[in-house]
Amino acid sequence: MTAAEILAAHTREVADFPQPGVMFKDLTRLFRDPDAFALVLQDIADRWSGTVDVVAGIEARGFIIGAPLAQRMSLGFVPIRKAGKLPGETHSQTYDLEYGTATIEVTADAFATESGPRVLLVDDVLATGGTAAAACRLVESAGAQVVGIEVLLELGFLAGREQLPGREVRAILVD
Amino acid sequence: MTAAEILAAHTREVADFPQPGVMFKDLTRLFRDPDAFALVLQDIADRWSGTVDVVAGIEARGFIIGAPLAQRMSLGFVPIRKAGKLPGETHSQTYDLEYGTATIEVTADAFATESGPRVLLVDDVLATGGTAAAACRLVESAGAQVVGIEVLLELGFLAGREQLPGREVRAILVD
Repeated sequence: MTAAEILAAHTREVADFPQPGVMFKDLTRLFRDPDAFALVLQDIADRWSGTVDVVAGIEARGFIIGAPLAQRMSLGFVPIRKAGKLPGETHSQTYDLEYGTATIEVTADAFATESGPRVLLVDDVLATGGTAAAACRLVESAGAQVVGIEVLLELGFLAGREQLPGREVRAILVD
Repeated sequence: MTAAEILAAHTREVADFPQPGVMFKDLTRLFRDPDAFALVLQDIADRWSGTVDVVAGIEARGFIIGAPLAQRMSLGFVPIRKAGKLPGETHSQTYDLEYGTATIEVTADAFATESGPRVLLVDDVLATGGTAAAACRLVESAGAQVVGIEVLLELGFLAGREQLPGREVRAILVD
C-alpha cells in the first residue's frame, strides 16, 4: 500500500465536529498503528531528506507527526506553540481567524544554533492555510528559512494553498 | 553521559513563568538536539521495553516525547487531549486545579484494538501529580491498564508521587 492508501484507511470521518457542517478528519487511528504510522513518516522523510535542517511542528497535532519525523530524519524538532505557552523571550505572529485572532510563538533561540537553517513545517491538516501562512512568517522572522510545508491531509476545497504563494506544499492525501 | 546528565545539560530554567515565583523548566533545547533527544528516548525505551503495549502522551508536551518514544518502541501512540479537542465519543476525566477544574479525554476507541492493553503514560514534567492521576483514571476507565508513568523531570518538592499511590513512577531527573 502507498502512504496515501494507508492514510485513507486510517482516517476516521466525524460529522459536525468541531461545529455543525464540518466533516472532521480524525487521525488517531493512524497514530496508534505503529507500522502504518512508520510508513507514512518514512514517506515524508524520503520526500524531504537532505533538503531540510530542522522540523517545526504546529501545536498540537503537528507535534505528534513532527517529533517522530524529526527523530527519524535525525533532525532537531522545534515546537510552534500557541501564545503564552513558551517561557522567556519569543518570536510571535498574530493572524486572523474567522472570528478574532490567534497568536503562535517559538522561543527566541529556536533556530539560533545555525545561521538560517532550512525548516520543514509540519501539521496534520491543511485547511484554510491561515495557520500555515502565519507559521511561515514566524519561522522567517526568527531567522530561519521555510523550505516546505508537509501535511498529511489537504482539504482542497478550502484552497489553503492560495494563502501560501510560492511555497512548496506537499500533502500525502488531498480531499 | 547518562540520560540524566544530558537532560540536565539541555534544560533551561526561566524564572517567574508561567507565574511569579515559579521556576519553569524549558526542554525545547533537548527537542532540537536530535542525538541528545534520541539518547533520552532510548533510555526510556530500555526501561519499559517488553512491559507495555501502548504509549499515551498528555497534551501538549507529552506528545513531543510520547510520539517518538512510541515509534522507537514500535508501539501505538494515544494522545490524551484537553476537553473538546477530540471528535465523536470520548472517555473523559475531570480533576481539580488550584483554581477551577480541567478535563482530559481519549477517543472511545483509543484502546479498543486489544483487550486491556498495558499503557505507559508519558509527560514532560511531574509537578503536583493532578494531571497524571487523572490520566491514570482516564486510561483505566477506557478499558486499559496503566503499567507506569514516565516523566523527564520530577519536581520533588511538589510531592506529585503522593497523588499516585501504588503507581510505578519513573523520572529521568528529580529536582
